[in-house]
Formats: sequence, C-alpha cells, structure tokens
Amino acid sequence: MTEAKGNLAAHAPGMPVVAVIGDGQLARMMQTAAIELGQSVRLLAGAEDASAAQVAADVVLGDYTNLADLRIAVEGADAVTFDHEHVPNEHLQALIDEGINVQPQPAALVHAQDKLVMRQKLAELGAPVPTFAAVDTLADAEAFWDEVSGEVCLKARRGGYDGKGVWMPDTREELTELVTELLAKGTPLMAERKVALARELSAMVARNPSGQTAAWPVVESVQENGVCAEATAPAPGLDPALEKQTREMAEMIATKLGVTGVLAVELFEDESGEISVNELAMRPHNTGHWTQDGCVTDQFEQHLRAVLDYPLGATETKAEYTVMANTLGAQVDPAEPMAQRMAEVWRRYPNAKIHLYGKEHRPGRKIGHVNMLGSDVEQVRREAREAAYYLVNAQWP
Amino acid sequence: MTEAKGNLAAHAPGMPVVAVIGDGQLARMMQTAAIELGQSVRLLAGAEDASAAQVAADVVLGDYTNLADLRIAVEGADAVTFDHEHVPNEHLQALIDEGINVQPQPAALVHAQDKLVMRQKLAELGAPVPTFAAVDTLADAEAFWDEVSGEVCLKARRGGYDGKGVWMPDTREELTELVTELLAKGTPLMAERKVALARELSAMVARNPSGQTAAWPVVESVQENGVCAEATAPAPGLDPALEKQTREMAEMIATKLGVTGVLAVELFEDESGEISVNELAMRPHNTGHWTQDGCVTDQFEQHLRAVLDYPLGATETKAEYTVMANTLGAQVDPAEPMAQRMAEVWRRYPNAKIHLYGKEHRPGRKIGHVNMLGSDVEQVRREAREAAYYLVNAQWP
Repeated sequence: MTEAKGNLAAHAPGMPVVAVIGDGQLARMMQTAAIELGQSVRLLAGAEDASAAQVAADVVLGDYTNLADLRIAVEGADAVTFDHEHVPNEHLQALIDEGINVQPQPAALVHAQDKLVMRQKLAELGAPVPTFAAVDTLADAEAFWDEVSGEVCLKARRGGYDGKGVWMPDTREELTELVTELLAKGTPLMAERKVALARELSAMVARNPSGQTAAWPVVESVQENGVCAEATAPAPGLDPALEKQTREMAEMIATKLGVTGVLAVELFEDESGEISVNELAMRPHNTGHWTQDGCVTDQFEQHLRAVLDYPLGATETKAEYTVMANTLGAQVDPAEPMAQRMAEVWRRYPNAKIHLYGKEHRPGRKIGHVNMLGSDVEQVRREAREAAYYLVNAQWP
Repeated sequence: MTEAKGNLAAHAPGMPVVAVIGDGQLARMMQTAAIELGQSVRLLAGAEDASAAQVAADVVLGDYTNLADLRIAVEGADAVTFDHEHVPNEHLQALIDEGINVQPQPAALVHAQDKLVMRQKLAELGAPVPTFAAVDTLADAEAFWDEVSGEVCLKARRGGYDGKGVWMPDTREELTELVTELLAKGTPLMAERKVALARELSAMVARNPSGQTAAWPVVESVQENGVCAEATAPAPGLDPALEKQTREMAEMIATKLGVTGVLAVELFEDESGEISVNELAMRPHNTGHWTQDGCVTDQFEQHLRAVLDYPLGATETKAEYTVMANTLGAQVDPAEPMAQRMAEVWRRYPNAKIHLYGKEHRPGRKIGHVNMLGSDVEQVRREAREAAYYLVNAQWP
C-alpha cells in the first residue's frame, strides 16, 4: 500500500487495495461491497462521472487499452480485477510480468473472450456444449450448414454481448452472404447448432486463488432481444439432481480453467431437459444481481473476497425466491423525474429493492435493476417486472 | 441540483443530493445505501481520510460548528441530514431560514440533544420514563436523592454518549461533591431514578416528512461499560403484546416529536417487565446495524428514503434471528493484520457478515461490527461475538 498512487486517503491503513479496471455498474457495486469490508476500490475509469467513478474517492482517469494508464491504476494495488473482459491480454501479461497480482489471469480470461477457445476447452473437459465448428473460411461455414441441416447460429468469436455478434441465417444463401461479408471485415467467426431452447439458466460460482469454490443456486434467466430481462433464483422447477450437477459443473469449469473471482456459466436448457453451456463471464454478472438482497454473500463481496484470496462467503438464500428484473431504458425517457418514479414504485411495493447505476437514459440501456423476495414465484416475478417497468416508463404495464 | 457546490460528477443528473453533516461510520453506511439508490452523498467532513470521506467522491472539508462551512456543504442539496446530534441548532435554524431542507429539524432534534427536555416531553406524551428531576442547584439534587431514597442516576443533560456523562453516586456525600463540581463547571444536569434493569431494548422507527412511519422489530441490546456490544433481533422472549405496544410507542414518539429519518428509542426493561425510555437518537443507530443483513430495508436506506420524503421500505426480517456484535478496539492492537484476521473469521464462519469502518485502532473504539443470521439464537449470539472478538484480538475467546 505504501507505494499506491491515486488518492491514499481513500484507503484505510493496513487494508488491501483492489484496483478495478472499469467504471460501469459492476465496478460501482463492487465499491458498495468494498465499503462494507472496510475498503474502497481504486478505479481505472474513462470519465469522472462514469457509473462507478461517481461513488469512488480514488479514481484514475485513463484508457484500459493503454498499458501506461493501466500501470498507473494498478501501482501498489494488492489485487487487480475487472468489470469487463476487454483489457488486452498482452497488457495483463505485461503487468503480471512486472509482479502485479491480476485476478483472473489471462490464461483463464481467454475463455470468456473467445467463444471458440471456450467451446474447444469445455468440450475437452466434457462439459456439454452445442455442436460447433471454427469458421475460418466460407467453406467451413457451408460445411457446417450441411452438417447441422441449416440449424446454424453464427457468432463472432470475440466482443459480442447482449445479443450483439450473433446471427441466425434463415437460408444457405443468407449464410454465404453473411460469412463472406464478416470474413472480409476480418471478424473471427464460429458456428454452432441452434438449440431448441426451453429456457436459459445461469450457474454462478466464485473461486479464489487457493482453489476454494462456492456456488450459488442455479437461476433461470429470461432474455429479451438478446438482453437479460429477468433472473429468478432458484430456477423454478429445476430437477434437484440436475441443479446439483450443474453447480458442480460450474465449479469444475472454474477449477479447470483457473478462474478467480466470480464466474457466470450461462446455460441453455433444451426441450428435452438437457443443458449446454452458452457463455462464460469472469466477473460479477447480471444474472447474479439477485444475490445482493437474496443471499448471505452477494456476488460483489464474493468477487472481492475471491480476488483477495480470502475464504469465500456462505451462499445460502434469504428467501424462498428472489427475482431480479432489469430496468432497461425505454424508447423515450418519460418526463416524470426518476425520483418520482421511485416514489411511485415504493408506494405500490414497499419491498421493491431498487438499485440504480447513476446512468443517464438511453433506449435499451441497463440503468438499474429491481430485486424482490417472496414465496409465490409468479407473484414476485410479476411485481419485480412491474416495478422495473415503471422505473423506465413512468406508467404501470 | 444545478447550484450544487462540491463535486458535481459525484451525482447522477436528476437524482436527489443528500448532504450529510458528519464523517463517521453512520455517514459511511449511508453512502453504501445511497450508491444502490443511484445517488451519492455529499459530506461535510473533518478530514479527507475520515471513515465516510474515504468512500465518497463529494467531500466538503470543514467544521460542523461553523455556519459558513455548513452553508458550503448544503448548497443545492435536496435534503440535509446528520450522522450525529451535535450541529448547533441555531445554525440549523439559520439554514432553514435560508430555505434549506434540514431533516430532522431542530424542534425535533432538541429531544435527542437535551435529556431533560426529552424526559419532560415524553412524560407529557404519556410515554414511560423513570422518575426524573431537573438539577439546577445542589438543593435540587439533594431533594431528589431523598425522594428516590438514594437510587439516583445523575446525567449531563447534553453531550453524553456511550456511558459518558452518566454518574451513579453511592452516597449523599458523593452526590453533593459531584453536583457541586459539575455545576461549577457549568454542566447542565438532571437526575433520574435508577432502574432495576433486566435488560435493554431498542425500538427503531423511521418517519418521513409526509408523516408515514415504519418500525423494525424491537431488539435486545447488550451494553458493556456503557457501550453497545450486541443487538439481537427480534428481542428474544419479548411478550408479543409488549412488542407491539413498544413499536407503536416509538411510532407515536416519532410522530409527536416531528422526527424525520430514523429514530432509535433506547429502552430499559425492568425486573417486573415494565419498560421505560432511556435515550432517543435521531439518526441510524448502533442497535439498527443488524438491519443491513437481516431486513428487507436497512436503516441507512430507510434514513435516506425518509429524509427525501420517499415512501418507506418494508421492514420484514430475512431470518429468524439476526445478531449484531460490535468490534471494539482491544487494549493493544494485535500484530496480525486485519486482513488476516478477517480471513481467519471467515474460515471458521463463512456466514459472518463483517462490516468495517476504515478506522484505525484505538482501545474501545467502534471499528466495525459483525452480523450473523440463524435460527438458534444462542448459537448465533455466540458466533457473532466470537467473530467480533477475533477481529480485534486476533485470537478466539
């Protein structure tokens, strides 16, 4: 700590300093957790009014793709972590070579960055993944089309999120056109067989560098237009044996990939009840926001504990069901001020736990979420969705 | 908001700004709650490395007894509140006269500042208080000694806390000496009859300016050397009718005194099961820290909601019992770093919720607390106490 740059007054003497590369809502909620642990995060932020920068006293302004900026942000930090997967791995490796404690490390992170590498590794580990193929040429794509009888989901290997970087061509001609165009732009591609999706699940787990893992209950998530809209914990009606097996698989993946911090394993459950892995994220994740109100240890505290190699916290739930509903910016921001919308939501639902990110309105943007607890899962879902809807529409659905 | 001084980047556009006069752990935990509500507090802090100032991006450094400093801190704030009762009321009145929204207001606050005024008011409202008297002269004290047969508890009317400003003279001569000395020093005094204490309780309630009140379950608190050591929610074995009556009394007091924000009503339960009011505090309170992990709405969020006149949150518990144990600085700070102590506590108790305040060690100082949830109240108490003990002693009791 004695060498730490930035605002030393932000850190209690003797307490570890975690540098977070990122300034979004995940970094913001890490700060909430850090405060209660007697700490304060240091941020590498792009702007002083970014979501997390608003609420932190030690903010380094800079660019996470610039090694010099990264060096300033991490100097003297006890651990360095992220709120996204987009820091160039060569920079992370350079920091590690300079003795910086980066968690998770690039060797693990690559599996959250490159969908093809992830699927190859998971297949090797025996984890269920949809049939997939590398698409380095048009011929690769066309061969895969024939192999899976046209049930093709084409994906950019890197950089996709919230439904971006995913295409579902309806015809072989459409595929040909799409792949030709994308390869010409230099987009690395892969393809996988479309899943006859019954629902999506998410298995979240934390792992610390000492190797301890702790899993939360598997949740059901609802995506709308490729964006997470809702998460229900635990996943209603999930067969207990499958739940256990899924948790254990998430722990196995975290262990085998050397993940540290929180790992989200996004899953498909198909119409026959089989599960397969869709995506990995190595950081707190939207499908884990429910833990803030519904669990003994939430994902933000657990992430900090994990990257600092503390023993992990208990993951017991505090209610029969917890539902998280995202508040996604409406097409037009209503005139009613947000404070009045919050008041209206609380008038109807005094138990609605509103979490906002300090972000300005933009259509479809994640500006917050609502957690609600209860025992009647359909009622809790409806109420959480209504509350989240009101916050961005200033009217009830 | 457009006129707000300080660090504008700390506040999301359109969200209310709460100025908190104070920089201790209560202000720190208000910041935790504010972050999740999409806000950020502005602080008037005495030092940039004070507990709350470490974790806030909008900090005005100044002196809360200086009106000019107060004016800078509150400019443009939507509401002004406190983490202690020591801001001079004439300054608060001056701010109110200038149009500032101060919550709670001096007319209410005086009852948390002056023990005699509080007891007179509560007696007038019919709330149970021990027999008491003003002590403006030695004759007053001696007359009261005779009236209660020497069962005298002498108190400074103002400024006492954590057992300071309270005396229990054993003899009439001791009383005479004490009162003579204190009156000579200009200490305003009162006296009350000693209570044959069975235990202490705390009834916490929030009230907003619109008049809505919400009470938490009544808790049992354990004081050691005049300092809160433990709080158990709900108070074990408390007669349900008495519990209800006590909650309602707290709500009545909040309403009749015009309290806004959180009110703590500290109570004595005597050996015959009768209760009487001991102290009032108009802010989040040590006996309400358990709500952070044990309640749908914690006292810090509720305080912010109340002072902003939002509808109040649900106060349902999330566990059969929640116990809060204070971590009070040991006589000597152990060599083992705090981070290692936390690790040791979590190794034994993965469900221990550690909250630290970023404060340096000082014997007896409140540097944090531990919350634990469970159904076996004696076990939860023991474990929470053990965890809190380890954090300051680096050994198990």
